[in-house]
Amino acid sequence: MLRTHTCGELNKTYKDQEVTLCGWVHKRRDHGKLIFIDIRDRYGITQVVFVPSVSKDAHALAQQLGPEFVVRITGKVNVRPDKNANPDVPTGDIELCATALEILNPSEVPVFEIDSNAAEPSEELRLTYRYLDIRKQKVLNALVVRHQLCACMREFLNKENFTEVETPVLTKSTPEGARDFLVPSRLNPGMFFALPQSPQLFKQLLMVSGLDRYYQIVKCFRDEDLRADRQPEFTQLDMEMSFVQEEDIFDLTERLFQKIFKEIKGIDLPIPFPRMTHQEAMAKYKSDKPDIRTTKEGFSFLWVVDFPLFKYNTEEKRWESEHHPFTSFREEDAKFFETNELDKIRSRSYDLVLNGNEIGSGSIRIHKQDVQKKIFDIIGLNEQEAQKRFGFLLKAFRYGAPPHAGVAYGVDRLVTILLGLESIRDVIAFPKTQKGSCLLAEAPSDVDPKQLKELGIISIKKEESNG
Amino acid sequence: MLRTHTCGELNKTYKDQEVTLCGWVHKRRDHGKLIFIDIRDRYGITQVVFVPSVSKDAHALAQQLGPEFVVRITGKVNVRPDKNANPDVPTGDIELCATALEILNPSEVPVFEIDSNAAEPSEELRLTYRYLDIRKQKVLNALVVRHQLCACMREFLNKENFTEVETPVLTKSTPEGARDFLVPSRLNPGMFFALPQSPQLFKQLLMVSGLDRYYQIVKCFRDEDLRADRQPEFTQLDMEMSFVQEEDIFDLTERLFQKIFKEIKGIDLPIPFPRMTHQEAMAKYKSDKPDIRTTKEGFSFLWVVDFPLFKYNTEEKRWESEHHPFTSFREEDAKFFETNELDKIRSRSYDLVLNGNEIGSGSIRIHKQDVQKKIFDIIGLNEQEAQKRFGFLLKAFRYGAPPHAGVAYGVDRLVTILLGLESIRDVIAFPKTQKGSCLLAEAPSDVDPKQLKELGIISIKKEESNG
Repeated sequence: MLRTHTCGELNKTYKDQEVTLCGWVHKRRDHGKLIFIDIRDRYGITQVVFVPSVSKDAHALAQQLGPEFVVRITGKVNVRPDKNANPDVPTGDIELCATALEILNPSEVPVFEIDSNAAEPSEELRLTYRYLDIRKQKVLNALVVRHQLCACMREFLNKENFTEVETPVLTKSTPEGARDFLVPSRLNPGMFFALPQSPQLFKQLLMVSGLDRYYQIVKCFRDEDLRADRQPEFTQLDMEMSFVQEEDIFDLTERLFQKIFKEIKGIDLPIPFPRMTHQEAMAKYKSDKPDIRTTKEGFSFLWVVDFPLFKYNTEEKRWESEHHPFTSFREEDAKFFETNELDKIRSRSYDLVLNGNEIGSGSIRIHKQDVQKKIFDIIGLNEQEAQKRFGFLLKAFRYGAPPHAGVAYGVDRLVTILLGLESIRDVIAFPKTQKGSCLLAEAPSDVDPKQLKELGIISIKKEESNG
Repeated sequence: MLRTHTCGELNKTYKDQEVTLCGWVHKRRDHGKLIFIDIRDRYGITQVVFVPSVSKDAHALAQQLGPEFVVRITGKVNVRPDKNANPDVPTGDIELCATALEILNPSEVPVFEIDSNAAEPSEELRLTYRYLDIRKQKVLNALVVRHQLCACMREFLNKENFTEVETPVLTKSTPEGARDFLVPSRLNPGMFFALPQSPQLFKQLLMVSGLDRYYQIVKCFRDEDLRADRQPEFTQLDMEMSFVQEEDIFDLTERLFQKIFKEIKGIDLPIPFPRMTHQEAMAKYKSDKPDIRTTKEGFSFLWVVDFPLFKYNTEEKRWESEHHPFTSFREEDAKFFETNELDKIRSRSYDLVLNGNEIGSGSIRIHKQDVQKKIFDIIGLNEQEAQKRFGFLLKAFRYGAPPHAGVAYGVDRLVTILLGLESIRDVIAFPKTQKGSCLLAEAPSDVDPKQLKELGIISIKKEESNG
């Protein structure tokens, strides 16, 4: 290590020790012959003083230091006189009296100030220079909390005997209602992979495989026209369990969120969460994700249940699945299939709503081939189409598929709400803009025509715009 | 829950209790009036007996049971007479005397036997019916051990103050020497995302961001002509640290693998691992990843260091990076830049070799803009090209990039070696074939011409093969 300690670590107990710190020049103040700098790393800030009589060389070099220079400083830990102590920072009782200074890398003057209290630069500037933006305490903290959240989820689920399984990213189109991102296959010319909108079919297949309890914190992809606060790639906690019913999903979820809120926010969450039928939510709140808080303070969870299984698409004059076509329905409503009152059939799906945001959604799945075929038929997938798109699931259902159910929670949204932030872009290390591009890496980008040729594709738009 | 216990849980202490199990019919034996079945779930196997005098209905229904039927059975736990006990299974002291049987889902006769001891079906059949293949103890176990390995890695690194950060999947081409998978951007016609060959640039940017210690268990993508045992998508443990030197990476790695081998294999791994220069490895073993075991037993780790920084591409008559162009070099060899003896410059990269397999690779990185530009120049990237491809990294280096280093370990290969398996396909839930396709989901596949039109691309090969 180039350092002996971090910039958040030293206090009175280190009095008179010689230490070496590495970090960024956060602030510099010249007081006559004395030069003070604050040196910063992700763990904290330590004040360093350069005194000519202690080291002439270090003092001379310190005069060249500008903001965000990367430095390595060796010195002695001095306890500050009480009047100079800074109770606002953990290292405020000491300062480092420098005996040696090394400039590890200089810095140009940053395009905005690295200070959470400074005026917020435009989002365009922040995302273009995301590596400077992340140096701010607030932005870094969002990444750390995100990490803690995922660690907390994994710890809980591992103890509950879940197995995290990676499902493919290069896969086949799944029908989550949005457009797929496609990946041309060079080895199979004319064919395409799709990036998964969710691991829905694979997690159901894992239940058919007998895995019993699956989870995955996983990237999902939707090529949407980017509305308000969406990202083309987002992360969900994806789960599936065999031989369970609604109450098992609710119980597990509630204990999971209880742990999350205790660990991340120090809050004791009351469980069980209240429940409301879709009908009641629409009647009372005109919303299927009502915010049931009486004041805007606090965190308020709500299960919304008993969604209709189908909704009628008046434009296309056909029935579609309200949730997705793998959702089971309430046994007592099965009679409405016979009477063709499809709007009366209640699904066995459930949404988890937090402060008026849908943060999760799931259902008891269909596990019988004939039932699954019937649903495909109602939503207008003919036998051939159903076979082409979901043949492998229907086939799997012929070989002993267990009753199973699952749920998925949006990680980006959850971190955003936990931290009281505005946008999911605030909790993603390298987010895309609302136009779906990465300002930092400048992606998407042109590619070498040779690459397209190898893939056997022609870009029409490109041809046009070049022509 | 539809069950009160799992199929691996019951023993003498449950004597006379009424329990409910769910699982798959593993075996059925009719002994005159008595019907025995073994019911299986991922936790174990329990013997159930159907006796007409206990439940006529259950006994009658049990006659219909075939292999892999999914059943729910309620009954009383009977302790078996000593002579009938089976010491080979944890539940071998008891059997369940069924009072009720429910067939949750029937099964067609599976295309191969669900028994790790049965003859191995062809890999094509195994992958097409992967959900049946995973029901085998051996295959399921590989997924569980993979999960345990990742949990073990995360536990270790979280304690060492690392932050797991998700980097983008939709990104820009990075130069790892293989072809990129491309993703046409609908919102930016004519432009393409690339799937990352590794998060190399993003993890270096996270160091510039001051994150200090980053890791991620992450999917990487290479569109290679699939040789021997490669997959188009694979998983690595990706790490990067600031203000460190080789010894820090070695120390951390060795302690990580010590924990892994203790937890997964119960083996006390001696550390530190031996080291060998690239020159010595080539001279003694004619390999840069020598297997230094004296017998083929045991696990033998080796660091290979002091690789040359460049290698000469005799076909294209130019120098290329041996590792990748972000690798730093030994200060004492800098003089060979002046004398143009590029082959004499030793890089600060290191490979970790296990039993002759390269399971990880990393380097101390370049963190200075001028040095990075010089390397790009030598490998024939002109200023304009370097700016276009890596401009964002060069720009980041202008704003206080710290000295940093990193390493990545191949998760698939590591699990394969830990379990003594043949192929990484054995430790991936849904692997691709050697031709890069998924036999289960039938991906890649045709797509709707409407989708291609929206993306502004034409598939030439497709047109040809249709025409």
